Amino acid sequence: MARVSQEHLDARRRQILTGAARCFAGNGFHGTSMQDVLKEVGLSAGAVYRYFTGKEELIAAIAAEAFGRIGGAFEQAADLTPPPAPDVLLGRVLRGALDGGMYGLERRACAMLVVQVWAETMRNEHLATALGEGYAAMRAAWVRLVEAYREAGAMTSDVPADDVARTMIAAAQGFLAQEALFGGVGPEVLENGLRGLMSMDPQKIS
Amino acid sequence: MARVSQEHLDARRRQILTGAARCFAGNGFHGTSMQDVLKEVGLSAGAVYRYFTGKEELIAAIAAEAFGRIGGAFEQAADLTPPPAPDVLLGRVLRGALDGGMYGLERRACAMLVVQVWAETMRNEHLATALGEGYAAMRAAWVRLVEAYREAGAMTSDVPADDVARTMIAAAQGFLAQEALFGGVGPEVLENGLRGLMSMDPQKIS
Repeated sequence: MARVSQEHLDARRRQILTGAARCFAGNGFHGTSMQDVLKEVGLSAGAVYRYFTGKEELIAAIAAEAFGRIGGAFEQAADLTPPPAPDVLLGRVLRGALDGGMYGLERRACAMLVVQVWAETMRNEHLATALGEGYAAMRAAWVRLVEAYREAGAMTSDVPADDVARTMIAAAQGFLAQEALFGGVGPEVLENGLRGLMSMDPQKIS
Repeated sequence: MARVSQEHLDARRRQILTGAARCFAGNGFHGTSMQDVLKEVGLSAGAVYRYFTGKEELIAAIAAEAFGRIGGAFEQAADLTPPPAPDVLLGRVLRGALDGGMYGLERRACAMLVVQVWAETMRNEHLATALGEGYAAMRAAWVRLVEAYREAGAMTSDVPADDVARTMIAAAQGFLAQEALFGGVGPEVLENGLRGLMSMDPQKIS
């Protein structure tokens, strides 16, 4: 029997995941059949099932990679010293999460894949647990960041740090949703928008 | 033949949509069969198909109602005089969109339904057109709001008003995503978080 290198196995696995991710981004997990994946990948059922037992395993692998990538982008940004302002930070996160994309997907297709993962997460306990853990880690990292803003006297202490952290995460998530649904949303839109909000003086309109 | 009142027809239609919405919120459009809907509603296939030709029509009706409700919440909030600050505005939008919920659903189930609609929109052109129009109207209304902030001298004119509008919409969307995925996110989290961001002085950390 011919020996197959680990490199070859990894490349084949990657090829399958890439084709599956392309199908899922456009048609969702439930709108994609294994037949669709085989056709996209251009491999036989035998070749694909050697790597993945079925669609559920493909979904789990792709969701895990998406969580890891986005979580990583959030955490790396939070580790910078001195802490960047929210606009700079969120621009970095979005670029880290979407540029040079997952599975070679375009930015919008990446965002679409993320929204599909959200929808799937609501009916899949394993994914819900994994996403919940990632979110908790993200919140904790960003709470430390907000505390650093406060120590520098750059932000009010009147509101819970966790609420600010969750609002920054929400802005990033909403941008992924807009990019997925409409396309054409560059990270600079969020950077500018946050700069606008940070400049707001509510006293002047009351 | 017995005459059936319009009231009765409307109530029956509502009953079917309510049951379908409950199924869809938890299991997604593709994870829900017409059998699931019939079981949830407690009506025969004959009774249900008199009102809706199938799942596609149920999805279209529910998505249209979700778009209308959320779009309405965004637009009403933008019409207030004097314009409320972003934190007050977004709190109103989230309460309007989720409280006293669609189809009698709890707040989290409403948010789940919205995320399911997003996922479906990416593969359904009719929904994409409808959502795109709603989003354009929302952006236009919120751009006027940002211009009102500026005229009052409450916000910088250095960034495009449209970017600020899109960032505020993103914050609301991200909150719907967090509520759908994790639950327990009250509108006050976003209000507080925005207050924190508005108080930010980026000069102090650079």
